[in-house]
Amino acid sequence: MSKKNLEICLSPAIFNKYENKDAIVVVIDVLRASSAICTAFSNGALKIIPVAEIHEAEEFKKKGYLVAAERDGYVLDFADFGNSPFNFTREKVEGKTIVYSTTNGTRIIDMASSSYMTIIGTFINISAITEWLSMQDRNVILFCAGWKDKINLEDTICAGAIAKRLLESSLFTTICDSVYAAIDLWQMASLNPLSYIEKAAQRSRLRDKGLDNCIEYCMTFDLTGSIPFIENGILKDMSG
Amino acid sequence: MSKKNLEICLSPAIFNKYENKDAIVVVIDVLRASSAICTAFSNGALKIIPVAEIHEAEEFKKKGYLVAAERDGYVLDFADFGNSPFNFTREKVEGKTIVYSTTNGTRIIDMASSSYMTIIGTFINISAITEWLSMQDRNVILFCAGWKDKINLEDTICAGAIAKRLLESSLFTTICDSVYAAIDLWQMASLNPLSYIEKAAQRSRLRDKGLDNCIEYCMTFDLTGSIPFIENGILKDMSG
Repeated sequence: MSKKNLEICLSPAIFNKYENKDAIVVVIDVLRASSAICTAFSNGALKIIPVAEIHEAEEFKKKGYLVAAERDGYVLDFADFGNSPFNFTREKVEGKTIVYSTTNGTRIIDMASSSYMTIIGTFINISAITEWLSMQDRNVILFCAGWKDKINLEDTICAGAIAKRLLESSLFTTICDSVYAAIDLWQMASLNPLSYIEKAAQRSRLRDKGLDNCIEYCMTFDLTGSIPFIENGILKDMSG
Repeated sequence: MSKKNLEICLSPAIFNKYENKDAIVVVIDVLRASSAICTAFSNGALKIIPVAEIHEAEEFKKKGYLVAAERDGYVLDFADFGNSPFNFTREKVEGKTIVYSTTNGTRIIDMASSSYMTIIGTFINISAITEWLSMQDRNVILFCAGWKDKINLEDTICAGAIAKRLLESSLFTTICDSVYAAIDLWQMASLNPLSYIEKAAQRSRLRDKGLDNCIEYCMTFDLTGSIPFIENGILKDMSG
């Protein structure tokens, strides 16, 4: 087996510059979508249906689905809860199908769906995904969600942490400058990731809205072995 | 004077996400356009006309202009020389108008032209531009040229070096994650910038074509006090 190629895409705006058709794409949105999705599956959710538009989410709600929907950090009034991973408790989600309304997330999932396979990765499932990726004979693109097409620190350092593990396995190789940059940033951040992302813009946005209580959770390694993947636009858990 | 805002745009693909109308934009293309342009002015060039298409450059050549034109590292046969800064010697360029054919560079200059002002920055004129920027009452966007819309290491660390100086002056403030990322990468690179960019993809591309003899030059601080700026699509030197 020849070495597999590893790349990092730091913004959705440049994803179309990456050859993704035969690659596995890992969508990384640390604060908070990736962490929420992994938590939901870890707590027994059956599947998650991502929808872009609020009215779609509302239609699903009328049909009796459990709906997670937020805009700019505020829970929509018809929804059952917002995007914090702490909402996706076992009591609420076990055995359920969840409709998850997120504009940016749905756009990114749509973009990534042209790949061979799309999975969801973040700190809380990092060992599960890196071990799984190492076993696949496929090139890998780590796809950072960023913030409104700009690059963000938390997704970049998470991609760096994943990339570092994959390259250390000697199964991967890279000629991608973003991989080197992300690994070096993770190198600096890894001494104290929580303190490192104090300067991140999303850290401040969440603090301003009182939504920052989940940050330590979202930056913790290996809380779950869940590997969410996308099949026909719907999220499922590989171990589920 | 309230603090001025500093941002870094790491890829041309996301430049339209930045509010640049009232800001000064610094175009950074370390290897090699920014370095070549600064060198030309440092050696007495009068002005530089950037053109996108090869046939435009050829037309200018027929009219008697000095033409610098390369594609993928190879000098075009009708041109006087290529894009290495070493070509722009005083003997060749003093008192001359140069036509500079560069697809990516022209595109970036076009994009940046909607800003209040566009200047060219790199390591070799870093003190000149940072001192000048500090004196202007304008927000600043450091605009990395990158490589085919992907992020590259050499422009990112140069933006980090410039950003570090501007923030240390206390005249600037930032809430841009790319500024923090670039400064941290510069922090790592600054111990030995030449060795740091050994891993950069452009470093390898230039080496493969035997064009890497100018890299040390391009990574040297303060070889010139030249501050190239754009006026009606034409590059001039502020001190000229």
